[in-house]
Amino acid sequence: MCGIFGAFSTKGGPVLEDVYLGLYALQHRGQESAGVAWINSGGNVHALKGTGLVHLALNQQQLASINSGCGIGHVRYSTAGGSELTNAQPLTATSSRGAVAIAHNGNLTNAPAIQNYLESRGAIFQSKTDTEVILHLMAHQSHKKRLDAFVDSLRKLQGAYSLALIIDNRLVAARDPWGFRPLVIGKRDDVYYIASESCALDLVGGEFIRDVEPGEIVVIGEKGIQSLRIPVKAPEKFTCSFEFVYFARPDSVIHGRSVYEVRKALGRKLAERAPCPDADLVTGMPDSGTIAAMGFAEASGLPYEKVVVRNRYVGRTFIEPTQRVRELGVRIKLNPIREMIKDKKIVIVDDSIVRGTTCQRMIAMIKEAGAKEVHVRISSPPVRFPCYYGIDTPTREELAAARMDIKQLEKQVEADTLDYITEKDLIEAIGLPVSHSCTACFSGSYMEGDHSDEMEL
Amino acid sequence: MCGIFGAFSTKGGPVLEDVYLGLYALQHRGQESAGVAWINSGGNVHALKGTGLVHLALNQQQLASINSGCGIGHVRYSTAGGSELTNAQPLTATSSRGAVAIAHNGNLTNAPAIQNYLESRGAIFQSKTDTEVILHLMAHQSHKKRLDAFVDSLRKLQGAYSLALIIDNRLVAARDPWGFRPLVIGKRDDVYYIASESCALDLVGGEFIRDVEPGEIVVIGEKGIQSLRIPVKAPEKFTCSFEFVYFARPDSVIHGRSVYEVRKALGRKLAERAPCPDADLVTGMPDSGTIAAMGFAEASGLPYEKVVVRNRYVGRTFIEPTQRVRELGVRIKLNPIREMIKDKKIVIVDDSIVRGTTCQRMIAMIKEAGAKEVHVRISSPPVRFPCYYGIDTPTREELAAARMDIKQLEKQVEADTLDYITEKDLIEAIGLPVSHSCTACFSGSYMEGDHSDEMEL
Amino acid sequence: MCGIFGAFSTKGGPVLEDVYLGLYALQHRGQESAGVAWINSGGNVHALKGTGLVHLALNQQQLASINSGCGIGHVRYSTAGGSELTNAQPLTATSSRGAVAIAHNGNLTNAPAIQNYLESRGAIFQSKTDTEVILHLMAHQSHKKRLDAFVDSLRKLQGAYSLALIIDNRLVAARDPWGFRPLVIGKRDDVYYIASESCALDLVGGEFIRDVEPGEIVVIGEKGIQSLRIPVKAPEKFTCSFEFVYFARPDSVIHGRSVYEVRKALGRKLAERAPCPDADLVTGMPDSGTIAAMGFAEASGLPYEKVVVRNRYVGRTFIEPTQRVRELGVRIKLNPIREMIKDKKIVIVDDSIVRGTTCQRMIAMIKEAGAKEVHVRISSPPVRFPCYYGIDTPTREELAAARMDIKQLEKQVEADTLDYITEKDLIEAIGLPVSHSCTACFSGSYMEGDHSDEMEL
Amino acid sequence: MCGIFGAFSTKGGPVLEDVYLGLYALQHRGQESAGVAWINSGGNVHALKGTGLVHLALNQQQLASINSGCGIGHVRYSTAGGSELTNAQPLTATSSRGAVAIAHNGNLTNAPAIQNYLESRGAIFQSKTDTEVILHLMAHQSHKKRLDAFVDSLRKLQGAYSLALIIDNRLVAARDPWGFRPLVIGKRDDVYYIASESCALDLVGGEFIRDVEPGEIVVIGEKGIQSLRIPVKAPEKFTCSFEFVYFARPDSVIHGRSVYEVRKALGRKLAERAPCPDADLVTGMPDSGTIAAMGFAEASGLPYEKVVVRNRYVGRTFIEPTQRVRELGVRIKLNPIREMIKDKKIVIVDDSIVRGTTCQRMIAMIKEAGAKEVHVRISSPPVRFPCYYGIDTPTREELAAARMDIKQLEKQVEADTLDYITEKDLIEAIGLPVSHSCTACFSGSYMEGDHSDEMEL
Repeated sequence: MCGIFGAFSTKGGPVLEDVYLGLYALQHRGQESAGVAWINSGGNVHALKGTGLVHLALNQQQLASINSGCGIGHVRYSTAGGSELTNAQPLTATSSRGAVAIAHNGNLTNAPAIQNYLESRGAIFQSKTDTEVILHLMAHQSHKKRLDAFVDSLRKLQGAYSLALIIDNRLVAARDPWGFRPLVIGKRDDVYYIASESCALDLVGGEFIRDVEPGEIVVIGEKGIQSLRIPVKAPEKFTCSFEFVYFARPDSVIHGRSVYEVRKALGRKLAERAPCPDADLVTGMPDSGTIAAMGFAEASGLPYEKVVVRNRYVGRTFIEPTQRVRELGVRIKLNPIREMIKDKKIVIVDDSIVRGTTCQRMIAMIKEAGAKEVHVRISSPPVRFPCYYGIDTPTREELAAARMDIKQLEKQVEADTLDYITEKDLIEAIGLPVSHSCTACFSGSYMEGDHSDEMEL
Repeated sequence: MCGIFGAFSTKGGPVLEDVYLGLYALQHRGQESAGVAWINSGGNVHALKGTGLVHLALNQQQLASINSGCGIGHVRYSTAGGSELTNAQPLTATSSRGAVAIAHNGNLTNAPAIQNYLESRGAIFQSKTDTEVILHLMAHQSHKKRLDAFVDSLRKLQGAYSLALIIDNRLVAARDPWGFRPLVIGKRDDVYYIASESCALDLVGGEFIRDVEPGEIVVIGEKGIQSLRIPVKAPEKFTCSFEFVYFARPDSVIHGRSVYEVRKALGRKLAERAPCPDADLVTGMPDSGTIAAMGFAEASGLPYEKVVVRNRYVGRTFIEPTQRVRELGVRIKLNPIREMIKDKKIVIVDDSIVRGTTCQRMIAMIKEAGAKEVHVRISSPPVRFPCYYGIDTPTREELAAARMDIKQLEKQVEADTLDYITEKDLIEAIGLPVSHSCTACFSGSYMEGDHSDEMEL
Repeated sequence: MCGIFGAFSTKGGPVLEDVYLGLYALQHRGQESAGVAWINSGGNVHALKGTGLVHLALNQQQLASINSGCGIGHVRYSTAGGSELTNAQPLTATSSRGAVAIAHNGNLTNAPAIQNYLESRGAIFQSKTDTEVILHLMAHQSHKKRLDAFVDSLRKLQGAYSLALIIDNRLVAARDPWGFRPLVIGKRDDVYYIASESCALDLVGGEFIRDVEPGEIVVIGEKGIQSLRIPVKAPEKFTCSFEFVYFARPDSVIHGRSVYEVRKALGRKLAERAPCPDADLVTGMPDSGTIAAMGFAEASGLPYEKVVVRNRYVGRTFIEPTQRVRELGVRIKLNPIREMIKDKKIVIVDDSIVRGTTCQRMIAMIKEAGAKEVHVRISSPPVRFPCYYGIDTPTREELAAARMDIKQLEKQVEADTLDYITEKDLIEAIGLPVSHSCTACFSGSYMEGDHSDEMEL
Repeated sequence: MCGIFGAFSTKGGPVLEDVYLGLYALQHRGQESAGVAWINSGGNVHALKGTGLVHLALNQQQLASINSGCGIGHVRYSTAGGSELTNAQPLTATSSRGAVAIAHNGNLTNAPAIQNYLESRGAIFQSKTDTEVILHLMAHQSHKKRLDAFVDSLRKLQGAYSLALIIDNRLVAARDPWGFRPLVIGKRDDVYYIASESCALDLVGGEFIRDVEPGEIVVIGEKGIQSLRIPVKAPEKFTCSFEFVYFARPDSVIHGRSVYEVRKALGRKLAERAPCPDADLVTGMPDSGTIAAMGFAEASGLPYEKVVVRNRYVGRTFIEPTQRVRELGVRIKLNPIREMIKDKKIVIVDDSIVRGTTCQRMIAMIKEAGAKEVHVRISSPPVRFPCYYGIDTPTREELAAARMDIKQLEKQVEADTLDYITEKDLIEAIGLPVSHSCTACFSGSYMEGDHSDEMEL
């Protein structure tokens, strides 16, 4: 998972502080590194990148003082590949034909095949990101106009990509034909924005215009917006349903659907699909399950309570994993309110179970605090398959629901009962056409034609 | 406001990592600086202090590696005096009679008078904290045993103090005769703890034993706990009611009362005292009003919703207050969920109104997002008087409720209606005897005999 | 100017701390950035690079703890291109055929032409260093063995290069056919070294074996040293004479000649060519002229004195160029000893005059301290032409001796007399065959066939 | 050893950047910490202090921007007590009677006795510096005017002190009645300066006025300079001769004597007292012996050569003392020029022998480089006694010359011959009356009445 943001002023006014603030609003999509690239007055591309949260990786005042009307930014999620600065984005490439900058959210499933091919023809790769293949594909078409080279490069790509680029003093956005990752367009006075989520438009005071369509390339220049199509036919849409379940911020709107409302609807579905009428109260796993828990409470009529408090400095403070800290376990982060728990039958709602360890610890803690019964309810179907489209899921062996059925899992986490919604419930709560939602991590139905190891260029 | 923590192992085992973790649990009581002092194997006192959050100010692994069975710690709140490291606590003093360390939560109302007197007798003060007078009072009784010198020093003090000290290889806790600030005792195996709030005991796995009584001195040594009395007669108790309203963590228990339950009760009282039957939903100011809002919802039957999302990186990320950021205002921190707000009549619950600016901005933002009506409900009485006992309130001119009556304030913040609970409601919700609660900031009834400028020694 | 160092242990023992220490000995050749690259146990290349002096750019203990038997390092001189980390060396390139690392001292005169050609064929350049063309030339011959690809790449290069590389787990050194920059081989037990100057061998306890010959490629592997020739015929040698005059450390030996002895011989030549019999004493510009001044004193019989003291913390301490500091001028760095200067006729010896400003300020300071006469003597011929082979000289308009003859310059710097040695004197003092010394910066006689803008590949 | 500097503008103009620059010129007197204290517009004293070199410990631009006409500064030498920031100077004390700041060079021999006495009367000491006793002595006379309290405090002190203070908006300088440490007064336009050495006046463009006399207190205020006497009768003067031998910068003038000229005279004396007629050349230990070596060469007629080169980045770069670095030993810092050494008989001149280890390593290195004979000549008498007046000498057991006679020492360091000058030679070369020079470290003749452990107040 990553977040991208772009800004373009038709009057050439300064936009880089807005890029900084946009990344700040998208911080939940990536905490490993952050970067900004822009066009300077001489028409060259510059970039600043750093590791860690946006305010550590970048210097707000430095960006505010740069007079550039065209910039893009990126926040990167911590994945297995390690947090090296060389993998931070935007990537840039300078040639005699000018400079290009690119920021990418998603995962290209055929990147290794393309990289092999290009290296055999003399290309030198600098980063370990799949994004770099797009720059090399463009460079190998040096006889074409660069926007054309870019469009033709997209034809070679498979998998998920929502992109922000700077090409020839224009801001370019593109979204893969399947539409895996969100991407929206906004506007404030003379400034156009593109952003991974609408909450970033809100923060900079931009008005939401529309989503970038799956398969669309949007080119923003001095004369405004222009729209092109990626010359690839996608048999169906694959918008990631996990964005609604967990990843996106609740104040974002994706494909016209409020994420907050979807999460409450998932909670209501859950109360219908897997009720728990004898319980005394409903609570949510902090903070991933709280909104669905409120929906569950609403539909079931059970009272919603906070029975576990999250230390509000967790995440701001790094606690070393010493022997003593391991001993104390989940207590470091979460503290039960014993007065609310003692002798109660409690429903805990969470968004998903991945490895199952967090869930197990939470149940143990609540039982230790005196709960009579603990019933776990999950506001999405069981996650049984890894994601190849940009979400950092563990391997299949590590996915609890891939190894066990629900009854086994219930026993494993020591819940009194454990239950999920179905894929159909999920689709209904999201409210988009069934053919438009990627549910590969639940169903294993990946996009067709994927995972090829060879390429034709 | 500050937080203090102490640990003593009767077997001499290492306790400093627990002090670090205890401070981490008390981080909400002070973010300006943090410090730890301890006895080393040679019987000397050492201290480490730094500015900022606990994990920046102190080094967990360094503390974990120190073999000391007696330590105290302190987190300091940002007050007007500035965040200089010289004011960080614990303070230490080394003399030929050995070393002392002290950590203080509260405010001594007669500190200036004592300091004047001592300076006229040759004392040199190093910090700007009132706490230092205790050390000088002890040093000026160099002929007495040091624990006796400490007890006799307390006789001279007026105002609020919950203290943790190291004296002669023992851990000492003391609480002023009025009992303004909380202080509790806990135990885990061979380790005794003292802490500002019970949530810190929970984090280190300690069992709650009891509160330190107002006017009590607790001395913890190799043979266990011993209790002494401060030789001052307090006419009444003055336990701070604002700890329940706002300051303490909801998972703490003060004088046997769960803070979470008190806050919910305050919300229920509020729904009775100042109902709003035509509203569509209730929400809480994030994060200070959420629990009371849930109580209001419960008592009123109105649905509880989150309609404003707080950027979860606010507080972790420092945003420079540039021109652009001022322009964007509260948007940087809070984002309304328009779908939930549009055309709704909304009750917002908050814990208190100090200057009124936050409240005003919140209302403006919600109205801008399309709310039909906004009704403000406050889960404590109007704050009309400054606190002299350790809470950093502004001067009287800056307190909105000191300058305006409720109707004027309602108009000022542009609420459709604005209302409060009464002092009686507050006392009932807290559930302690009326004579035991300090309500000076609401009523102006300060402790008797206070504010004298002269001293007799 | 830059410095390079390489180490290879035939027993695979750790060598990276020696690379660090070798760079430390070569610090005078570059203070902008430093880097180390090495082969790890998996056969991959890793690199660490940073800006500033060696001890700031790199972590000695980290390098000491890495178990690698093959490493190279680089210190980079501050040139006009700016001190960005992306230009720091060694450069590395990873492909399916393995990884390569390269460190370069010198300047390739046809790099822009090669870069243009390669970009037209799809190459993406990451740095602004001419060194990167070598990596791309190798990558474009992906069908050849990589050592062969390297040798064939050198055929395309013009200009100055002393190189250290890691190719296929071997340490490779190469020196251009003209022999501009020095490069030596050393050995200690099972470890071979290559270094820009012999003083670096001394520091790590290595014995000097021999210079790398102009046009030679040295391959050091588990079986020892192997020598290849660059397939380019160089009509003559071009060993840089400025290394002797100024750049190399006095304790280095280049082509069998002690730099210290050459500098003393230059001073003696200067005393013969441009005597100053009426002077009272001889001094050297600190620190660039001191050794030649000692030679001048020896040949002339005049006493050698230090009359100006350099603050020994200049260079360690950065002084901000505030208004006050500009006012104080050269005083910040240098302080005259008035007692030694007053009423004296003084000869100041320096190695060269570039812009003339330092010389002018020194004379003014000495006159202000009471000198009766100041006579300037330069231990090299006038620098009239820019260097294209790796020394960062200013443009022709900025070179004082390119704009003025000696009399004009004498007047400009306000010396009583000013004089130089001749090119013949220089060659004789160096003691190498005349055809082996590059004197292009004095004579303007650049290597033939240079400066072509086109390339054939 | 430490360095102090003060500046006072009679027009109130800004002086703190000059204090910074003055400390920079005195950096050789202390590298552990640096600090500046000043009077602000409200008449309060502020201080900034830090560890390490001046430019790391302090912020030049911050100081340049402060508008204060009265400031003092201090650089602290690394002594056994450790480099804690709490020991950094200037020390300050604030009381109802105003604030005082103090910076001290020297060592008070009766400080422990005074501290014991004051602690028994309730004083709390914060630092481990003897300087703090002066502040407490002043505070215990709170009924007197503060300048009077200061003067009367000096009566209690024994040992060495050159002081700079801020008292009541005036700059105060004081020097102990024995005159151990240097202290000078300078002036530039409306600004008066005081400094440990005259080289600091030169750097800020100040004209040397005169030394502060032993036993004098100089008070600089808006009306200019005023002089008071310390009411203690000193039987004799005790100006430290080691300042001339080693400590002071060669461009300083102490008591009217140029340090450079004294060092050359010491070298000439040495050539007379301990000639070495068969030697081929003379060299100096870099950098402590170079000037005396030039004097030796001049008097003996032997040529002066540099045969060992000091890495010019030693001191700027911190090299970790790893196993490998210990193995390489002195090579890390010094490199012999073999061509100059081979088969030569060499005289090495150094200023002193303390532990003897440096000397021994230098001899070993030169012999290893092929020297036929190595003759050591020391430009001061043997150091046989510790210094109690501010120079950080080791204990008697560690002083090589306290354990061995010259012949034994010669054998120990493996010199062919080793010789010193006499105390009489030293006095003559310094050129001050014999009764004015402290030679306690050579002779053991300490000031009378010293080392008492009791005090009368």
